[in-house]
Amino acid sequence: MRYDWIGFLTDYGTDDEFVAVCHGVIARIAPSVRIIDIAHSVAPQDIARGSRLLADAAPYLPESVHLAVVDPGVGTARRGVVVVARDGVLVGPDNGLLLPAASALGGARTAFALMNRLYQLSSVSATFHGRDIFAPAAAYLALGVAPKEFGPSVPLTRLARLPEPTVSVAGPAMVADVLGIDRFGNIKSAATAEHLAALGISLNSTVYIGFNDRRMTAVVSSTFGDVPPSTALVYIDSSEHVAVAVNGGSAAELLGGEPIDRIEISPIEIG
Amino acid sequence: MRYDWIGFLTDYGTDDEFVAVCHGVIARIAPSVRIIDIAHSVAPQDIARGSRLLADAAPYLPESVHLAVVDPGVGTARRGVVVVARDGVLVGPDNGLLLPAASALGGARTAFALMNRLYQLSSVSATFHGRDIFAPAAAYLALGVAPKEFGPSVPLTRLARLPEPTVSVAGPAMVADVLGIDRFGNIKSAATAEHLAALGISLNSTVYIGFNDRRMTAVVSSTFGDVPPSTALVYIDSSEHVAVAVNGGSAAELLGGEPIDRIEISPIEIG
Amino acid sequence: MRYDWIGFLTDYGTDDEFVAVCHGVIARIAPSVRIIDIAHSVAPQDIARGSRLLADAAPYLPESVHLAVVDPGVGTARRGVVVVARDGVLVGPDNGLLLPAASALGGARTAFALMNRLYQLSSVSATFHGRDIFAPAAAYLALGVAPKEFGPSVPLTRLARLPEPTVSVAGPAMVADVLGIDRFGNIKSAATAEHLAALGISLNSTVYIGFNDRRMTAVVSSTFGDVPPSTALVYIDSSEHVAVAVNGGSAAELLGGEPIDRIEISPIEIG
Repeated sequence: MRYDWIGFLTDYGTDDEFVAVCHGVIARIAPSVRIIDIAHSVAPQDIARGSRLLADAAPYLPESVHLAVVDPGVGTARRGVVVVARDGVLVGPDNGLLLPAASALGGARTAFALMNRLYQLSSVSATFHGRDIFAPAAAYLALGVAPKEFGPSVPLTRLARLPEPTVSVAGPAMVADVLGIDRFGNIKSAATAEHLAALGISLNSTVYIGFNDRRMTAVVSSTFGDVPPSTALVYIDSSEHVAVAVNGGSAAELLGGEPIDRIEISPIEIG
Repeated sequence: MRYDWIGFLTDYGTDDEFVAVCHGVIARIAPSVRIIDIAHSVAPQDIARGSRLLADAAPYLPESVHLAVVDPGVGTARRGVVVVARDGVLVGPDNGLLLPAASALGGARTAFALMNRLYQLSSVSATFHGRDIFAPAAAYLALGVAPKEFGPSVPLTRLARLPEPTVSVAGPAMVADVLGIDRFGNIKSAATAEHLAALGISLNSTVYIGFNDRRMTAVVSSTFGDVPPSTALVYIDSSEHVAVAVNGGSAAELLGGEPIDRIEISPIEIG
Repeated sequence: MRYDWIGFLTDYGTDDEFVAVCHGVIARIAPSVRIIDIAHSVAPQDIARGSRLLADAAPYLPESVHLAVVDPGVGTARRGVVVVARDGVLVGPDNGLLLPAASALGGARTAFALMNRLYQLSSVSATFHGRDIFAPAAAYLALGVAPKEFGPSVPLTRLARLPEPTVSVAGPAMVADVLGIDRFGNIKSAATAEHLAALGISLNSTVYIGFNDRRMTAVVSSTFGDVPPSTALVYIDSSEHVAVAVNGGSAAELLGGEPIDRIEISPIEIG
């Protein structure tokens, strides 16, 4: 199996040379491969955020090798792995970063440790495995080297996993973990349309939304422009999650600007 | 007509997955097309800024499909359109974003509404038409699908238009809208060399420049290094507009740092 | 000699159209060439920072034309040059930006002034030589135009050079210039393993590190995870320089957050 595309996500930022160096390493090994940069501005060592971005983007790419590096344990005993999913392969540190994307790509099938020095740069540093191990692995995978050539099989149950985001329903309210806040201040929760339905909330319902001691009303709507300007809405976003937005504004700002990690939604009782 | 290149501008930023998702959608439909990212850091929903960047960049690209999404009205009744210009085609929301670039590309010739579901993703969300409608349209245009295949013709006079930037001359002074302030703090106005000439201002003239209650002198020069360090100059910039800079510094800072939307220039009367 | 790749570094940022315009100019002249963006967020006119990023990235790219523009003297009498190195060619202003990368690419061999109008855009502005002179030169070099076709030979000794970073040893301590602070707050010095060895410092030594009036201890280690969380370490980084980091934190913050341009390292005397 060969791949024409590599998806690439890191927490390297673009102010240093790290991303370009990895592009260069890939280009030397697999010059015809093309790279889609998914994101490089993940906050340093924020594995959870990296894992969500990767999982959200990966299904929209052509069948690819996904190279992801958010790696606080670089140089320690933590493993490097290649994870084979139904619709692509993923390469990176074994710290939970890759598995949500593997699920989004139809599920993980097999995994292998990155041990074979043949597919690493000739000199491997202790602090830049993106350059020395992961980018070369991605390039060789794209060239058609079989995942099992990289090293011993790792049972999927032995791979490191991040905690799953949770949605809990208590009485008429649900409390959902926040998966991310985008550039527009839209707050994406872990809840889906099914959670809203279970609370009896449907399109055009008015609901309470809350975070910490902030509480306000919002209307369940299809899109931003369905409510008046500067008004809050609850909607199903383009990744099928329940989200909160403000038409022409920022829901994150309206809810206080501080880090928002959970959001509560409940129907307004009529009568 | 097929296109090898897609120019791509949004207000999506690069901290989220949105830009990569659109790259992926295009790569799945038209894998051989190459994308030139024009800018993605346009302030959220700043259609005017997006339209100027697009118009400034587009003429320097190879003949391309230009995909631009700054779209506060996503999901509402606002149209999506393809605009055919002499030197390329443009795709995006019908909110004025595309027309300055169409002019820069030799003028708009025809336009069509994006209605044909054949050229959209199979499921269209209410909040991410960049992914579901515009990126696929750009990819299919690149593959050679004729613009008229996308939907009914839209008369050019019915397309939404932004207000034109203005330059007004009152007595010996002109007041010009500011088109943009670049990374170096250079202030680009809507005026051109003709406006300076009409005021009798020529190379090496000393002029007043002003914004709000700030007023200072500057010398009309060819380039930054023609004046001493930290000194202001007025020059014709690389897009043929009258601009204000400071050699080795920032004109925007010198003029107060606040948003600058207009600038006044007048000759210094001798005697 | 033809090149398939262009490495590209500027201080243009990505908020304006400048980078995209240069991509477009290259694509029109040499459509099959592929560009690796090294960095565009170099602080405006910070030639030293640009030169280091370029030198750090260039050796990892395939053999390339390296196009670099950090150019406070644009439009003045400063020369534009192409510098031929053993493992690639470099194009940009003659202000010292290119030479460290030329050394990293096996050493500069010859240089030529960019004078031939055949290989420039038909109209050359006074303020955007990236677009009008340097990007076209890079594209024509990639197409196989010989460096000597661009203009008269420039002796290497006549090229502008930046001051070299220094490392000085005084008694048991060394003081090294800081080459850069990366996104993770890791501080890279100009010193190498040889400097540490000369001070009798080896793996697992405890040392003092200092900057201005801040002084603290650190352990010489291989990688971040070799010391406890939030603890400082001294290590040889992936570019073979002595660097200071904090496991799971930022050394730059720990040392005070202000600009750090020099760092002192000394062994802790036992007994």
